[in-house]
Amino acid sequence: MSSRLPKLVVVGVGLIGGSFALALKSRGVVGEVVGVGRSRGNLDEALAAGVIDRAVLRDGPWVRELGDADIVLLATPVGEFSALLAAMPGTLAEGAVVTDGGSTKQDVVAAARAHLGAALPRFVPAHPIAGTEQSGARAAFATLFEGRHAVLTPLPETDATALARVRTLWEACGADVVTLDAQTHDRILGAVSHLPHFLAAAYVAELAVRPESGALFGLAGSGFRDFTRIAAASPAMWHDIGLANRDALRHEIAAFRGALDVLDTALRDGDGRTLSAMLESAAQARRAWGTRPTGD
Amino acid sequence: MSSRLPKLVVVGVGLIGGSFALALKSRGVVGEVVGVGRSRGNLDEALAAGVIDRAVLRDGPWVRELGDADIVLLATPVGEFSALLAAMPGTLAEGAVVTDGGSTKQDVVAAARAHLGAALPRFVPAHPIAGTEQSGARAAFATLFEGRHAVLTPLPETDATALARVRTLWEACGADVVTLDAQTHDRILGAVSHLPHFLAAAYVAELAVRPESGALFGLAGSGFRDFTRIAAASPAMWHDIGLANRDALRHEIAAFRGALDVLDTALRDGDGRTLSAMLESAAQARRAWGTRPTGD
Repeated sequence: MSSRLPKLVVVGVGLIGGSFALALKSRGVVGEVVGVGRSRGNLDEALAAGVIDRAVLRDGPWVRELGDADIVLLATPVGEFSALLAAMPGTLAEGAVVTDGGSTKQDVVAAARAHLGAALPRFVPAHPIAGTEQSGARAAFATLFEGRHAVLTPLPETDATALARVRTLWEACGADVVTLDAQTHDRILGAVSHLPHFLAAAYVAELAVRPESGALFGLAGSGFRDFTRIAAASPAMWHDIGLANRDALRHEIAAFRGALDVLDTALRDGDGRTLSAMLESAAQARRAWGTRPTGD
Repeated sequence: MSSRLPKLVVVGVGLIGGSFALALKSRGVVGEVVGVGRSRGNLDEALAAGVIDRAVLRDGPWVRELGDADIVLLATPVGEFSALLAAMPGTLAEGAVVTDGGSTKQDVVAAARAHLGAALPRFVPAHPIAGTEQSGARAAFATLFEGRHAVLTPLPETDATALARVRTLWEACGADVVTLDAQTHDRILGAVSHLPHFLAAAYVAELAVRPESGALFGLAGSGFRDFTRIAAASPAMWHDIGLANRDALRHEIAAFRGALDVLDTALRDGDGRTLSAMLESAAQARRAWGTRPTGD
């Protein structure tokens, strides 16, 4: 990016928002970073870690910060986006562009349409496909997005200059930017991100309430470790994702139940051929994925 | 271990068998290691990598190697154990002890009872809870078992000296040895190892057959990577585990279906409280597990 952008406002200084700020600061793409949040403790940690330069509480006059912003990133759980977007018309600087880090896109687009008014063309919905099971400003790091996909889901109304600027910002974070419509995004991510998350969470929650959970967790090994890692991620964030993308997620649950039925029937019948076919197909597909050029 | 054991025979020189050999050789616990296997290619790789000192094919006179063995490790897929154990009476050295690396134990104990005869007291069933998604001799490494649990499931008939020797061997590999009855082992491992494996495999196999699987896998990120890692593991090994422990596994599938029902109903009804409770319970349990003293 050729010209430095004087002011970035990050609303929600967690893993995604904090890492976006750190990535752009470390590359000199932005000047001042203002962090907006609900928790004084998290904002203090963000200040101490150099993630943000100035902190503003959500229950204070944070919308004033929009008046001279160049970029605004929404990085709270997606359930809070409507309220945040509703505060923007009339307060957002003329030249500011808005993007987000939400894991769902149809709900975010709908909220933007409902609230942004004349500022709608300057909103470029984004989803960086990156994360860890950690949350909060302390979990942020500048290289989180490097080599990861960032999906942009522009609207027909989206301004070409705003789209180009947001693309450049995510690329400056090291991300490989792809463009999709919001519905396709939500369907794909429902299958490869949201379903695994809820399967892992349902699994761990079911074990955790058993009387013998201590004995179970005590003998769990590295397979369990990796399979369940995502279940430790922010419950608030995933609550919002689940509700926002519930149609696609329920569709995926239904498809998975079908696969589980086949598995259970094969076990019941001692049907080794069906078991082998399933295991072979999975191993082959997963090995191929693991050796794809982008690596992981 | 105070006295060096001159001869170890490893039947099935894969990730587990090869790593057991490497661990004991690197610590000077065993002398010669003889590898027995079906595939000349894999045995040649094991020889080249120094995992074994001598190779014998399964379709040759491999049982002769048992006549002067000090330790025999069975580390093939568990479905092959009956045939291997049936070859032992009359050929196994008087002083030899036998252990195994199978992931299921009730079926292994039953096979030992059916076939070992007078040698039964010298068989000490074991399950090292360690592995990677790799298989074959090339995947073996000497530290695989360090800091991991190894579960022994001795029989009432098991000889105390044999049990002590096998315990010492797994401890020499760096494992933390625990003792359980075979049924408890299979129930616990069904819950924390076998179910996650088959859930991951069913999930990947279901995605792999979809027409849009390329687009799906193309946007899969680090959550998908970890959730599905185990799906790349040896299909032959997991086929045998699934059939051997099918009762416990089907019990776990039923419990998981119940959790999935609760999730699906909560999504259908927009019931955020139930979603939150599940996600919070899972995150809390998984975070507590991740910080347990043994680490992982």
